[in-house]
Amino acid sequence: MKILLVAGGSPNEWPQFKSQDFDYIVGIDRGSLYILENGWPLDLAVGDFDSLTDDEQQTVQKQAKELIQAQAEKDDTDTQLALALIVDQSPDADITIIGATGGRLDHFLANLWLPLEPRFQTFAHQIKLKDHQNSIAYYLPGDYVVKKEARMNYLAYCCLTPVTNLTLTESKYTLDHVDVGIPTSYASNEFVGETAGFSFDTGMIAVIQSRDDK
Amino acid sequence: MKILLVAGGSPNEWPQFKSQDFDYIVGIDRGSLYILENGWPLDLAVGDFDSLTDDEQQTVQKQAKELIQAQAEKDDTDTQLALALIVDQSPDADITIIGATGGRLDHFLANLWLPLEPRFQTFAHQIKLKDHQNSIAYYLPGDYVVKKEARMNYLAYCCLTPVTNLTLTESKYTLDHVDVGIPTSYASNEFVGETAGFSFDTGMIAVIQSRDDK
Repeated sequence: MKILLVAGGSPNEWPQFKSQDFDYIVGIDRGSLYILENGWPLDLAVGDFDSLTDDEQQTVQKQAKELIQAQAEKDDTDTQLALALIVDQSPDADITIIGATGGRLDHFLANLWLPLEPRFQTFAHQIKLKDHQNSIAYYLPGDYVVKKEARMNYLAYCCLTPVTNLTLTESKYTLDHVDVGIPTSYASNEFVGETAGFSFDTGMIAVIQSRDDK
Repeated sequence: MKILLVAGGSPNEWPQFKSQDFDYIVGIDRGSLYILENGWPLDLAVGDFDSLTDDEQQTVQKQAKELIQAQAEKDDTDTQLALALIVDQSPDADITIIGATGGRLDHFLANLWLPLEPRFQTFAHQIKLKDHQNSIAYYLPGDYVVKKEARMNYLAYCCLTPVTNLTLTESKYTLDHVDVGIPTSYASNEFVGETAGFSFDTGMIAVIQSRDDK
């Protein structure tokens, strides 16, 4: 099952998608309105909706197949709340989050770091963050082969935490059993073929495939 | 001494500045060209300039008061190289970095995490990353008062590393002696007055003041 979560960031940053690529589409706060404005089905709307006008809130209420209204003052962000609901309902789903980048960087970092949270860690490999220039996938310790995504030129290994024994193979720049003590972005690497390899023993890595803006 | 570093990200993301606000302006790779296009003085140009055409490279060479040409294949990014030069030349300077956000997220994370590097850590409190919606300041362990910046609505405490004994005071949401085990963005906090207080014992925090896009 493929689930799309649409957070409240600007649709200008969205990647090119068809709604048919997903089985279930979830709007988070203002993301719900963007889904409707884009002519997509809104299977579930989640949030406190405090960023919407009364008219906009009514539109979402009328058109959402299901709606979960959150308290405005709460510990979780709307995105945390939506992700917690989804992994509970559909623990095996592939989850793509858009509208989670650009704009306010405190929001972006909250979104980037979601898979680090203990409650989401076991789902890390099922979560992807995407925008029109970037595709972020999450990895727990192990030995992996990454496939080059269409139209992406760059490959980066971003250690979100300290990482031990990091090895990068089959790419323009390689590493051999390196311990990384602080969060580090090994940026601007490149595929030399259709795949690249990497492995590490502890920590979490976000692999970012990206391209220059055109 | 106030130094402005201009990295290669889109000028559309720049905050509103006057070049007179700075004593020394440094262009990093394509940032050098953006400085000239903006009619600002280019005191120093640093980079491999491999993203520029021959004509663009000549423009930079002719108009830069000083130019440091880096190798294209090197361990440091152009931004790391420029920052290392600057803290070496002017260890007491206030350093503002723009053109470091937006676009490719592997670049942004490399920039965000610069002050974590051992060679830059002692300068962390002198470094700020800014764009038109965000202002990021860095803090090593201690007890601080943060001043609200003009036109910024939100306040966030982003723990870039594990942080111990975090206390937030004088803000909409507070925390009392909390240990934070993973990188965490305490986003969407707000000033209740003109200042807010916080303290912590270990780790590094990026305080982000931000506003919605208008």
